[in-house]
Amino acid sequence: MNKFPTIDDVKNASGRIKPYIHKTPVFTSESINRIFGSEVYFKCENLQKVGAFKFRGATNAVLSLTGEEAKRGVATHSSGNHAAALTLAARQRGIKAYIVMPRNAPPVKKKAVEEYGAEIIFCEPTLQAREENLEKVINQTQAVFIHPYNDLRIISGQATACLELVEEVEDIDIIIVPVGGGGLLSGTALSAAYFSPGTKIVGAEPEGADDACRSLQEGKIIPSVNPNTIADGLLTSLGTLTFPIIMKYVDRILTTNDENILEAMRLIWERMKLIVEPSAAVALAILLNHQNIARNKKIGIILSGGNVDLDNLPW
Amino acid sequence: MNKFPTIDDVKNASGRIKPYIHKTPVFTSESINRIFGSEVYFKCENLQKVGAFKFRGATNAVLSLTGEEAKRGVATHSSGNHAAALTLAARQRGIKAYIVMPRNAPPVKKKAVEEYGAEIIFCEPTLQAREENLEKVINQTQAVFIHPYNDLRIISGQATACLELVEEVEDIDIIIVPVGGGGLLSGTALSAAYFSPGTKIVGAEPEGADDACRSLQEGKIIPSVNPNTIADGLLTSLGTLTFPIIMKYVDRILTTNDENILEAMRLIWERMKLIVEPSAAVALAILLNHQNIARNKKIGIILSGGNVDLDNLPW
Repeated sequence: MNKFPTIDDVKNASGRIKPYIHKTPVFTSESINRIFGSEVYFKCENLQKVGAFKFRGATNAVLSLTGEEAKRGVATHSSGNHAAALTLAARQRGIKAYIVMPRNAPPVKKKAVEEYGAEIIFCEPTLQAREENLEKVINQTQAVFIHPYNDLRIISGQATACLELVEEVEDIDIIIVPVGGGGLLSGTALSAAYFSPGTKIVGAEPEGADDACRSLQEGKIIPSVNPNTIADGLLTSLGTLTFPIIMKYVDRILTTNDENILEAMRLIWERMKLIVEPSAAVALAILLNHQNIARNKKIGIILSGGNVDLDNLPW
Repeated sequence: MNKFPTIDDVKNASGRIKPYIHKTPVFTSESINRIFGSEVYFKCENLQKVGAFKFRGATNAVLSLTGEEAKRGVATHSSGNHAAALTLAARQRGIKAYIVMPRNAPPVKKKAVEEYGAEIIFCEPTLQAREENLEKVINQTQAVFIHPYNDLRIISGQATACLELVEEVEDIDIIIVPVGGGGLLSGTALSAAYFSPGTKIVGAEPEGADDACRSLQEGKIIPSVNPNTIADGLLTSLGTLTFPIIMKYVDRILTTNDENILEAMRLIWERMKLIVEPSAAVALAILLNHQNIARNKKIGIILSGGNVDLDNLPW
């Protein structure tokens, strides 16, 4: 039997994290609506603290720890938004965060995690090295491992973005969400099922990392092997906790190519004056090659994050 | 006797344009607050329609026309945000907009004005050519000239951004606003005087275009001669209508250099995930070299616009 976060888990997460997170705005753009012949509502998690929805899950996980657990601190391996999110969430509770990070992580990401006050352990850029170093850290410190997505507290936290969206905008026909490990997608699908059951959920995936799409087709987790896409936040495989939720509650997963992702990213920058990272643009990119699904509909899109290296823009 | 927009002019402008404009959000950033030791409230006019506060004034001007005037259309010379703003405001009333624009205007600006449906008249890139061509167009069409800032309807419209800000955030100590021709600065100063009289108003100007600062010191309009700054929206001189308002209601004008402007622009992009143009970053840049004025205070900043050429970023 699969254990899913319940409606109360999501409601409790929402109440628990409310004082610590930004209630992000929902924006629309007339010119984007005109392009797609739809009403598109953008939930701006790029404007969330640390610049990504990940802060919701990390905050919920950290605040869910017992006093005893919290004293030992938290640990994870990540070079991305989860690392920064967990570090800031830990700081807000006044506890330590240990982050195992590959030596070759982009300087801008190292800097963010450092500034938030993590203890960083650098390692070789392989999954094996990351896991071994994490194990070592946990053995030494007894810190609590917080997985970036395969964790019910994380999933419940990520679910709160969709909860806020459907509370603010009624009768959304379809919500489109990028999928990497599936934390945001599974959380969004649960929230829609609980709080807006008429809303369909579509996962958005780059063609060069379409493991979730194939997993859904085959009914089992297909690992992501040598993914290749500009959407560098979506390279990971689904988790054992996120996959069954996605199987049950997600309508379908659609893919799009990097050219469309770049075009969607430029549209959001130019028309909305919002900085989003490529991974966040994947949801809108889906509409570029599947326009028929959106026409005359109310579409919700979660802009998942805005952390880009401004010195290395992809155009 | 100088004629200033009255409190009712500003209130009427606010009511008149409300259905057509975005009520832009006010954002804060913990990391920016920490850097400056202040509470900084950013009124995001970069998220306004056409990406700039200019849409407020243009909409107020266009909606203030009599039916007879409106039939003849509106005209202006501008290569910047006012051209796009006036064109969209005209389209929303269903009337024509004639825009005289220098041949060498950036393609991205031409494109915006074209897309909004203006009739563009290209001319040589001199003030004389612009004025002559504008006169010709007006003689031919009887269109109503809407000056970008030296117009009471424009000033009343720009004043509404500050009105919204002080309605949302109480007891702001200082509002800092970039100054070019003075439309936004004079409107903001009037709104503060009418609706938040305890708030001081500071104009923010690039060192390379410090004509407003010198005008205020000398008590008369000093024209801007060969201005040189990255803040390309602030090159113009004060107007005969904006200057007396600024003399009366603005506390002082401070200047900053292009290096600080660039640094402030990067801060807003990186920390707030908002795209702002260099001219919009000048207000925050002031705090980089005048930190003492802001410490432990509540600061309001109007982010005036977000129209940048993403293929030619200044870093």
